[in-house]
Amino acid sequence: MSDGFHVYDTTLRDGSQQEGLNLSVQDKLVIARHLDSLGVGFIEGGWPGANPKDTEFFRLARTELDLKHAQLAAFGATRRAGLKAADDPQVAALRDSRAPVVTLVAKSHDRHVELALRTTLEENLAMIRDTVSHLRAEGQRVFVDAEHFFDGFKANRAYALEVVRTAAEAGADVVALCDTNGGMLPDELADVVHEVVGAGARVGIHCHDDSGCAVANSLAAVRAGATHVQGCANGYGERSGNANLFTVIGNLQLKRGMNIVGDAQLAEMTRIAHAVSEATNVTLSSQAPYVGHSAFAHKAGLHASAVKVDPNLYQHIDPLVVGNDMRMLVSSMSGRASVELKGKELGYDVSGQKAAEVVSRVKDLESKGYTFEAADASFELLLREELAGARTSYFTVESWRVIAEQRPDGVQISEATVKVHAKGERIIATGEGNGPVNALDTALRFALERLYPELANLELVDFKVRILEGSHGTDAITRVLIDSSDGKAEWGTVGVGENVIAASWQALEEAVTYSLLRAGYDPS
Amino acid sequence: MSDGFHVYDTTLRDGSQQEGLNLSVQDKLVIARHLDSLGVGFIEGGWPGANPKDTEFFRLARTELDLKHAQLAAFGATRRAGLKAADDPQVAALRDSRAPVVTLVAKSHDRHVELALRTTLEENLAMIRDTVSHLRAEGQRVFVDAEHFFDGFKANRAYALEVVRTAAEAGADVVALCDTNGGMLPDELADVVHEVVGAGARVGIHCHDDSGCAVANSLAAVRAGATHVQGCANGYGERSGNANLFTVIGNLQLKRGMNIVGDAQLAEMTRIAHAVSEATNVTLSSQAPYVGHSAFAHKAGLHASAVKVDPNLYQHIDPLVVGNDMRMLVSSMSGRASVELKGKELGYDVSGQKAAEVVSRVKDLESKGYTFEAADASFELLLREELAGARTSYFTVESWRVIAEQRPDGVQISEATVKVHAKGERIIATGEGNGPVNALDTALRFALERLYPELANLELVDFKVRILEGSHGTDAITRVLIDSSDGKAEWGTVGVGENVIAASWQALEEAVTYSLLRAGYDPS
Repeated sequence: MSDGFHVYDTTLRDGSQQEGLNLSVQDKLVIARHLDSLGVGFIEGGWPGANPKDTEFFRLARTELDLKHAQLAAFGATRRAGLKAADDPQVAALRDSRAPVVTLVAKSHDRHVELALRTTLEENLAMIRDTVSHLRAEGQRVFVDAEHFFDGFKANRAYALEVVRTAAEAGADVVALCDTNGGMLPDELADVVHEVVGAGARVGIHCHDDSGCAVANSLAAVRAGATHVQGCANGYGERSGNANLFTVIGNLQLKRGMNIVGDAQLAEMTRIAHAVSEATNVTLSSQAPYVGHSAFAHKAGLHASAVKVDPNLYQHIDPLVVGNDMRMLVSSMSGRASVELKGKELGYDVSGQKAAEVVSRVKDLESKGYTFEAADASFELLLREELAGARTSYFTVESWRVIAEQRPDGVQISEATVKVHAKGERIIATGEGNGPVNALDTALRFALERLYPELANLELVDFKVRILEGSHGTDAITRVLIDSSDGKAEWGTVGVGENVIAASWQALEEAVTYSLLRAGYDPS
Repeated sequence: MSDGFHVYDTTLRDGSQQEGLNLSVQDKLVIARHLDSLGVGFIEGGWPGANPKDTEFFRLARTELDLKHAQLAAFGATRRAGLKAADDPQVAALRDSRAPVVTLVAKSHDRHVELALRTTLEENLAMIRDTVSHLRAEGQRVFVDAEHFFDGFKANRAYALEVVRTAAEAGADVVALCDTNGGMLPDELADVVHEVVGAGARVGIHCHDDSGCAVANSLAAVRAGATHVQGCANGYGERSGNANLFTVIGNLQLKRGMNIVGDAQLAEMTRIAHAVSEATNVTLSSQAPYVGHSAFAHKAGLHASAVKVDPNLYQHIDPLVVGNDMRMLVSSMSGRASVELKGKELGYDVSGQKAAEVVSRVKDLESKGYTFEAADASFELLLREELAGARTSYFTVESWRVIAEQRPDGVQISEATVKVHAKGERIIATGEGNGPVNALDTALRFALERLYPELANLELVDFKVRILEGSHGTDAITRVLIDSSDGKAEWGTVGVGENVIAASWQALEEAVTYSLLRAGYDPS
């Protein structure tokens, strides 16, 4: 990506300030890979030194993240008042993160300097100057987030501009103007951006959605001359969220004609938005512009016949451009072409009528709550079934039962019994576990391991439970995703049902079946 | 409300085009009363004649709706091509609705006239002229929604303007320009509105959120001279939704200084947004500007100490003005200041040593996987325990047991038995459910409802399961969050454990305890 225009993602830092959003280091790595594949220019990974998780993220990123497009940015603050930048351990952690970019938050509102930082306006400028030039001298590129810039500009215009100038003169490549409290409206915001652009620095914009205008504010800033725009995947963020980066990208590319990401990358945007939402475990709003499940869904009967004549009469863009679909069953599999490609990737020849049947089966299952995005093994089993006319099967299930209890002495017990048939035998096995699904897993392996010794290599590495939208209380539809490994590869399976145990069992059964297939056993 | 500026709600008509939103006649009456109490000027009730429900709504509205501020509007279309307005049964239904206002949708995009209406451009103008003047003569006030206006203006500017002129000359009081496909951005939209305002009609604006700019577009139109703004409660609507009327009202009143609704009405906006969401059964986004549960929630520890000095440094408006409230999210990121603030918010005096103890307890629990950000009720129970030296308790649990099974005939059964002690009694109860947690919930309520009848109001509205980091397969640590409601307030509880059922039980037990506390029962 050229340096002419920056798309800067802060999902992993500012986005994770959202209520209820808690990302593990592994979640962060997964999300960073998705954002990179979309083609964003910068990914702000967190605040190294501020908490062990973020420090660990930057350490792992050096070996485990192989970014193709994006550069990693470490977020941190200017040095403390009265200290040298070189002596400030917080600044040292930014340097030690070895991120190619450091983004420093700096106060630009006079009252915040006095009340929150409790230092003088002059010392705040010195803190900016010293920290920027120190990190530059250490070989890092430095961006500055001018916090509360718009409120600061209203309160003390000269000082706010002085902060921008100081940062730029000390060597900051970008000064991002932050509408930290999110209260701005586009016209007023654009006027301020315009003045700052005139002042000489390369200007960025960072908006929050407290007025419901974060996207429009970002666009207004770009029109006023900003060439660096910050936002978060799916609009995550504190309070009402940050500017939704996917909406911003869609608008800049499709409405303003800017060349933000490649066409092929844009066509992945819907898939990526959903994949990120799986990782954050925050339900993606079906109304989300461009990428939401309903974004191109038509209900009005009035429209239906006219849509047949010319769909473009009733949609603002061609949904395929962002990987979405007017018929609205969003999935990376939703088109025949992607099923054919996916089949090829898995080593199957799926085309023509057969591909159409698979698409229709996938759409039907997705409408019931299944997802194949993160369940490649379930998709492959489905594909094999469609091609062979029968399920790949190593055993059949007669019944299963789990008892989970807490006894009067406080001890908790989970015990499962499965009755299965395999290679002509009827096998009954019972297993215990520290939870009901673990107990079922133990019982099923115990039943099958004598007949299929390779099963010993199977390990369940992750287990995700998701309650689907439209749910009400404990009687909602549950989706379970299980990631398994045999030490060589990892794969995902999915189960869906009103009953969390039954959904888990489904995913478990497919995980075991797929591991037996991979181990080279002949299906029965 | 003066006629100088119109706030026009179309929740009951265009909002109900949202995927998954289905309103009964009673729902519509409830929502209309809420919108009226907020002080909107017009409530579009539906399309009488198009379906029996909407016809019934207008019939019932005459006797059952006692609107204080708003006028009711009936939505419909211009007459059919080749028919007299007086002979068109669809137009007759609009008249017979006896709504004081009729809003007619009219085509203003030449291609839509040809392809969707299949008539001539001249006949379309005649249809507008005849229908408006007929209904005016029948004594109704007439507004016209110019459909696809902005796309039409781009395609055939002269014709789009001719539609506006024709409607105005025939006696329409308002011509609302509709961005039907929702693809406009504010600058371009404002330019068009400006030209139409110059053309002499009173101009309204109707925006959809497909570019994420519906609110900004509405504000831009008002700045360009529109004096009638349409939108939907909570941004309901087809695809990405309509302009969120609550956000528009908040912005116009608090950011643009317009006198849209009374101060006392504005202070009800948060309550009304949630009440409407109850009626539609569509969960209100916690991120919703002004009215969302998270709209004034702060997580960053950095902020908490400064917020104590001056809360206005960290919020774009005083949340009380819209009936919302600042909340501090308790998380390991935060320190004593946020615990003190959170305690105050809940009505407890926690300071000094006690606050430090609570912080240390919270950090310890968070390190085990608990989170209190989304579990305010669990936090309050913890706070009460620290202050009183004992848990708030209404019952003690001797034991519980769940059996979940799939029988050989494929039928799945979940059955739970709980043994509890309350008010000196030992109670054993068994419940079934469509999953194990649902079964436990049923059994526990059944056990306690005789002693605590208010428990009947408790409803579990959401249930989230998350597998925590450091997880390995099915023996991972599970966190369960349950959101509950008693019809007046909503609260969250949390449970953590290796066993998903045990974690759910913990969250369930606290949800029940908190509901009994709220209902005013004395703890044992």
